Amino acid sequence: MKKYDVIIIGAGPSGIVVGVTAKTQNPGKSMLMVAEEAKGLVPCGIPYVFHSLGSVDKNVMGPKPFIDLGGEVIVDPVTEADIKNKVVKLKSGATYEFDKLIFATGSIPVIPDFIPGYHLDGVEYINKSYNSIKELKNKADKAKNIVIVGGGFIGAEVAEQLASETGKTVTIIESEPYCFNKAFSKELGEIATKKLRETNINVLTSTLAKEILGENGKVTGVMLSTGEKVKAELVIMSIGYKPNTEIARKAGLNLNSEGAIIVDNFERTTVKDVCAIGDCSQTLGFITGRLDHIMLASTATAEARVLGYNLFGIKINRCCNGTIGIFSTEINGLSMASVGLNEKNGREANIDFVFSKFTDFDRHPGTFDDASSLTVKLYASPSDGSVLGGEVWGGKSTGEIINIIGMAIQKKVTVYEMVSYQIGTHPLLTSAPTKYVLIKAAEGIIFKIKH
Amino acid sequence: MKKYDVIIIGAGPSGIVVGVTAKTQNPGKSMLMVAEEAKGLVPCGIPYVFHSLGSVDKNVMGPKPFIDLGGEVIVDPVTEADIKNKVVKLKSGATYEFDKLIFATGSIPVIPDFIPGYHLDGVEYINKSYNSIKELKNKADKAKNIVIVGGGFIGAEVAEQLASETGKTVTIIESEPYCFNKAFSKELGEIATKKLRETNINVLTSTLAKEILGENGKVTGVMLSTGEKVKAELVIMSIGYKPNTEIARKAGLNLNSEGAIIVDNFERTTVKDVCAIGDCSQTLGFITGRLDHIMLASTATAEARVLGYNLFGIKINRCCNGTIGIFSTEINGLSMASVGLNEKNGREANIDFVFSKFTDFDRHPGTFDDASSLTVKLYASPSDGSVLGGEVWGGKSTGEIINIIGMAIQKKVTVYEMVSYQIGTHPLLTSAPTKYVLIKAAEGIIFKIKH
Repeated sequence: MKKYDVIIIGAGPSGIVVGVTAKTQNPGKSMLMVAEEAKGLVPCGIPYVFHSLGSVDKNVMGPKPFIDLGGEVIVDPVTEADIKNKVVKLKSGATYEFDKLIFATGSIPVIPDFIPGYHLDGVEYINKSYNSIKELKNKADKAKNIVIVGGGFIGAEVAEQLASETGKTVTIIESEPYCFNKAFSKELGEIATKKLRETNINVLTSTLAKEILGENGKVTGVMLSTGEKVKAELVIMSIGYKPNTEIARKAGLNLNSEGAIIVDNFERTTVKDVCAIGDCSQTLGFITGRLDHIMLASTATAEARVLGYNLFGIKINRCCNGTIGIFSTEINGLSMASVGLNEKNGREANIDFVFSKFTDFDRHPGTFDDASSLTVKLYASPSDGSVLGGEVWGGKSTGEIINIIGMAIQKKVTVYEMVSYQIGTHPLLTSAPTKYVLIKAAEGIIFKIKH
Repeated sequence: MKKYDVIIIGAGPSGIVVGVTAKTQNPGKSMLMVAEEAKGLVPCGIPYVFHSLGSVDKNVMGPKPFIDLGGEVIVDPVTEADIKNKVVKLKSGATYEFDKLIFATGSIPVIPDFIPGYHLDGVEYINKSYNSIKELKNKADKAKNIVIVGGGFIGAEVAEQLASETGKTVTIIESEPYCFNKAFSKELGEIATKKLRETNINVLTSTLAKEILGENGKVTGVMLSTGEKVKAELVIMSIGYKPNTEIARKAGLNLNSEGAIIVDNFERTTVKDVCAIGDCSQTLGFITGRLDHIMLASTATAEARVLGYNLFGIKINRCCNGTIGIFSTEINGLSMASVGLNEKNGREANIDFVFSKFTDFDRHPGTFDDASSLTVKLYASPSDGSVLGGEVWGGKSTGEIINIIGMAIQKKVTVYEMVSYQIGTHPLLTSAPTKYVLIKAAEGIIFKIKH
C-alpha cells in the first residue's frame, strides 16, 4: 500500500489552498489530493454560469498549482477514512496510507424533506459539482417558469442571473421579511430585495413554500403559505448548506451540533494528525467566539493557509480566531457587502454597538460620468470605539472597501484611530479626501458616542 | 475689531476639513475662514477639467459644509498675520482678532528661474486656483503644440488629458529615466511611462529643458539638453510645488529647509495657539521619521482632522506620526498606486526590505468580460515581516487595495498575519479567494524570508 505524508480529501478552494501552501513549505513531503470529479468549479462563480459567463466550462478551477509543486491528484471518491490505522479507502477499492489526513470535504445542500413533494422530478439543488451544475443548467435553459426557494446569496444570485435570460419567469420564495437576511441588516437587506425585484424577479418575502405540486411525478408548481399557487417546471431548493461530514462521522471524529468537525484554532481535530478546514470544519465567530454557522470560501481559504503553514508544527503564530464573515455580492449593478456585526446579528448576540452611515460618490468630483453613489454604514463599540462591523453598498469598489473594514476589525482599529487614518484618493478611483466615506462614518460614531 | 475664536487661512481641502471637524466638535466657538477666491477647486481633479470633465465648473468645491455648521467665510486674501497681537489683516484693509490661528495656505508651483526664457508669454503653471485654471484651459484649448516640463503626477495627468483632445501634439520633458519617479519604483514607473506613450504623448525621459525659446516675447518652443528643439505655443511648468508660507515667514514662524511651517505631531507650531496643516506644514515620513517632502490631499486632510479634534486640548490621542504617502492615478485606463516604501525610496533611505509580486485577475474566474489584470508588489521588513510598502496596478479596485496596504502599514501588520487575513471575495468584484493577490504577495515574502 502506497503511503503519503499528507492526504487531502477534497479539491475545492480549501483543499487546493492547503495543498499549495503545505507543499510550498514542505517540498520534500509526499502529498495526495483525492477529488470526487475530474473538473472542479469556482464555487462562488456558479450563479454566473446561468447568464453572464454563459457556460459551466468558463467557471472551472483545478488543482494544477498543487500538481505543479509536485502534489499528486487522484479522481476517485473516498468511501472510508480509517483514522486508527491511518488508511483511506476509495470507491475503486484502492487504499492509501497517510501520516496526516486533512478533511476539506466542503458542504452539501440541505434537503427540505419537511416540504411535501420535495422528491418530485424537477426539484433541484445547487451542488458545488461540475456534473451537477451542467445538468442543472440544461434544465434551467429549457424551463420557462422557475421558482427558487430561499433568498440567501446563492439563491438570489442564481435568480438574478436566470431572470436576465429572456423569456423566463423567476420567483423567489423567502421566509424572512427580506432576502440576504443572514448577512445583511434590515436596511441593506431591503435595498437588496428591491434590486432583485427591479431585475424582474417575483420576490415573495415572509412567505413559505408549503408544498411542491406535481403531476405524474413531475413538478408543476409551488403552493405557498398564503394559499397562492406559483407555476413552475423547475424548483431550485436553496435553503442552506450543511457540512459534508458523513465520512468524518463514520471515522469517529467529534462533530458539533451543526454536523461540522470540531477543530482547534489551528484546524486540528481531537485526533492526532487529523485536521479539517473549510465548510466541513467548525467555525467560531470572531466577535462572539461562539459557534457561527458561516460557510465562505474566504474563511475556508484563510483556514487552509493557517493549516498549510502549521501542518508540521506551529510555525506561524497566527490562529483562526473566528470568522468575521465578509460577504459581498452584486445584484442588478449594485454592489453590496457586509462584515462582522450589523444591527440584526448584533442585537441577536446582545452586543452593544453604535453605528453611523455616510454617503457620497465613489469618484471626485461626483460629476464624472462613471461616478456611483457609495454608502458606508460602520458599527463600533460605544465603550472603546473599536470597529465591530460594516456594510457597504454602491459601485464596485465596495468589494475592497469591505476588506479595509475587515482588516480594521481583525486589528481592533478604533474609530478614534480611523479618523486620522491616511487614505489614498484619486478623482478617477475613489471618494474625495475631504469626504472619504469610511472616515466620515467613523466621525459620525465619535459624535454619537460623545453625545 | 471683530474677534473670532478660530481663524483659518485658506479654503482648500485641509482648511475645509479642519473647519468642519473643529466646528462639529465645538459648535459654540466662532470660526472664520479666509479664502483667496470665491470658488475653490478639487485639487486632484484639476487635470480632468482639460478633457474628461470638460469644464472648470465641474470641478469646484467650497466651504458650504463649514457654513452649514455656522462657520463664516470671507473672500479677501490675508496680507499679514500678527501672531503677537493675534490679529490678521486682509487685502481690503479689514482686520480680525483671533484666539487660535490655523495656517492652511497650501502650496504653489516652483518657478524654474534657472531655465532661460521661463518668463516668456505662454509659459504657464498649474495653480490650484479657479481663475488661474480657467485661464490655462482657455490657452490650452487654443494651443496645438504643448510641452509639459515635469512628468510627476500633475504633469503626467494633465498631459494624458490634453493628449486625449483631438488635434494636439503633447510632449513631456522628464529629467529622470521614467515618470512618476518620486512615488513609483523603476518597474511601475516604466509601466506608467509606457502608458503615457500609448496615449500618444511624446515622452522624453532623461532629458532636460535647457531653454524656453520665443519670438516677440512669446513662446515658440523648448530647446532640450539633447540639442533638439520641440515646437510649442504653450509650455506648462510642472516641476514641483513648494509650501505657500510667505505670510507665515513674515509672521516669524519657524520654517524648515523646504520652507514648510514646523509643527509637532498634533500640528501645533512653536507659537502658542498657532497651528498649520496640509501642504504648508512640515510632514515627516511614517517609516523614516525624517523630513519628507510629500504633499497630498489625503495627508493634508488627515492632519486637518487631527487638528480639528484637538484644537481645544488633545481629545483624541492619535497624532500625525508621519505620512505613509499614498499615491494613486490612472493613465490611459491603467490604475496605479503606491504607498510607503518601494525599491527606490527604500534604498535611498537605506531600509532593509524584501518584496514579492503576484498577478491575477480582479474578477474570478478571469473569464468575465470586465476582468482586468491586477498586480500587487508588497514590501516588508526581512526582520519581523512587518509591511513597509506596496505598489498596485491594474483595474480600478487598485484605488482601494492600496488603502488596505495603507492600513496594514499604519497598524504594523506583518506578512505572517496577512496570510491568514480574512478577505471578502466575489466573482464580480474581486480576485479569487484562492489567489487573492495581496495575500499571495505576502506569502511570497514569507517564502523569501525563509529561503
